[in-house]
Amino acid sequence: MDYQILETKERVLADNEAAAGLTRGMMQKSGALLVNLMGSPGAGKTSVLKRLIGLLGDRFRIGVMEADVDSDVDARAISAAGAKTIQLHTAGLCHMDADMTARGLEALGVHDLDLIFLENVGNLVCPAEFEIGADLRIMILSVPEGDDKPLKYPLMFTVSDVMLINKTDTSPIFDFDQALAAARAKALNPDIRVFPVSAKTGEGFDALALYLAEKTEERKQECASLS
Amino acid sequence: MDYQILETKERVLADNEAAAGLTRGMMQKSGALLVNLMGSPGAGKTSVLKRLIGLLGDRFRIGVMEADVDSDVDARAISAAGAKTIQLHTAGLCHMDADMTARGLEALGVHDLDLIFLENVGNLVCPAEFEIGADLRIMILSVPEGDDKPLKYPLMFTVSDVMLINKTDTSPIFDFDQALAAARAKALNPDIRVFPVSAKTGEGFDALALYLAEKTEERKQECASLS
Repeated sequence: MDYQILETKERVLADNEAAAGLTRGMMQKSGALLVNLMGSPGAGKTSVLKRLIGLLGDRFRIGVMEADVDSDVDARAISAAGAKTIQLHTAGLCHMDADMTARGLEALGVHDLDLIFLENVGNLVCPAEFEIGADLRIMILSVPEGDDKPLKYPLMFTVSDVMLINKTDTSPIFDFDQALAAARAKALNPDIRVFPVSAKTGEGFDALALYLAEKTEERKQECASLS
Repeated sequence: MDYQILETKERVLADNEAAAGLTRGMMQKSGALLVNLMGSPGAGKTSVLKRLIGLLGDRFRIGVMEADVDSDVDARAISAAGAKTIQLHTAGLCHMDADMTARGLEALGVHDLDLIFLENVGNLVCPAEFEIGADLRIMILSVPEGDDKPLKYPLMFTVSDVMLINKTDTSPIFDFDQALAAARAKALNPDIRVFPVSAKTGEGFDALALYLAEKTEERKQECASLS
């Protein structure tokens, strides 16, 4: 072979991993927890965030980076809910990468925050490939999407620490088997934590808020022990 | 400036457009109509196809290319519904491009078919950027996803010829304004045709099937006049 093959994608992912590593180190020192929130368009990312801000906003200083291809619909809703918010536009890109996230964190300012969410672009494929340096990866599968999604978009379920099954209030009208969805996700990722929730009714959010509060406190203590 | 800037994405899209042009010409000669069916994960692409095969399968020879990151869940369902089917795996890629589509068409075989659907990867972002050489682009927005999606994923609504508003049977429990969703899509793309449907109940499918039958007949006549 007398020519070079450039593995473009591998190079992109390697560069991305390096940038994610820098963010991970920066977050540890900052004492704030960074959560990458992912899911399909309409899975309920913004509604879930609004619930969590309501439940955790008195105890923790919450920041949100809203990543969208376009518009600021979500940023307005989140800002109104009381979190420090910035809108990131990906200019057509289907996911946030580590470098874009680092710039977002710089613009948001992390030192007066305890818990930071990146609401990723609505997409079950691309965000799973791009680590952003988050401490926790939470993905949302909503009941109307169907319980077969772990079979069809396996990487998202493999890389996530938490799966929320959202819109459980609509279970009576959709043919969605929660136990089957959870089993399919756990077959890919035995450690994944599953929380059934309804952002509409609030069902299931106490357990989720408790889990996030514990993680946020752990990060604070980890930071205190470093200094 | 003493260095070259490679506009990688522009080059990729230009190469893709060239491949799409070849497919477009090939389809015209074949006499079959190629439809690119797009939408979020769980929007109902496979269920819509099953309904259309039921309504149009007696009149037209239908072929389906099922594109998925992984699994063959959908291909089995579509094959059972009676269409000539192949499963395409994108190996992690978030969309089908024109070259992959051309290979899919070659594997499917187009000359004994009248109407061919590509069920694209579930994704509202990336498939909108990659023209595959289709005669018709149909996107599905389902009621549970929310009526704000044209604001947040504008390109998909801009490039599509048809928007299906699916799962209309669930309208009573979701806060989805059909007129508003249609107006938002038409603000981006005044020519977009909107069909409210329910793949579950069959509501609205007669009008959609009629529209597709007309397009398929037009293609047949166009082909006959060429030869």
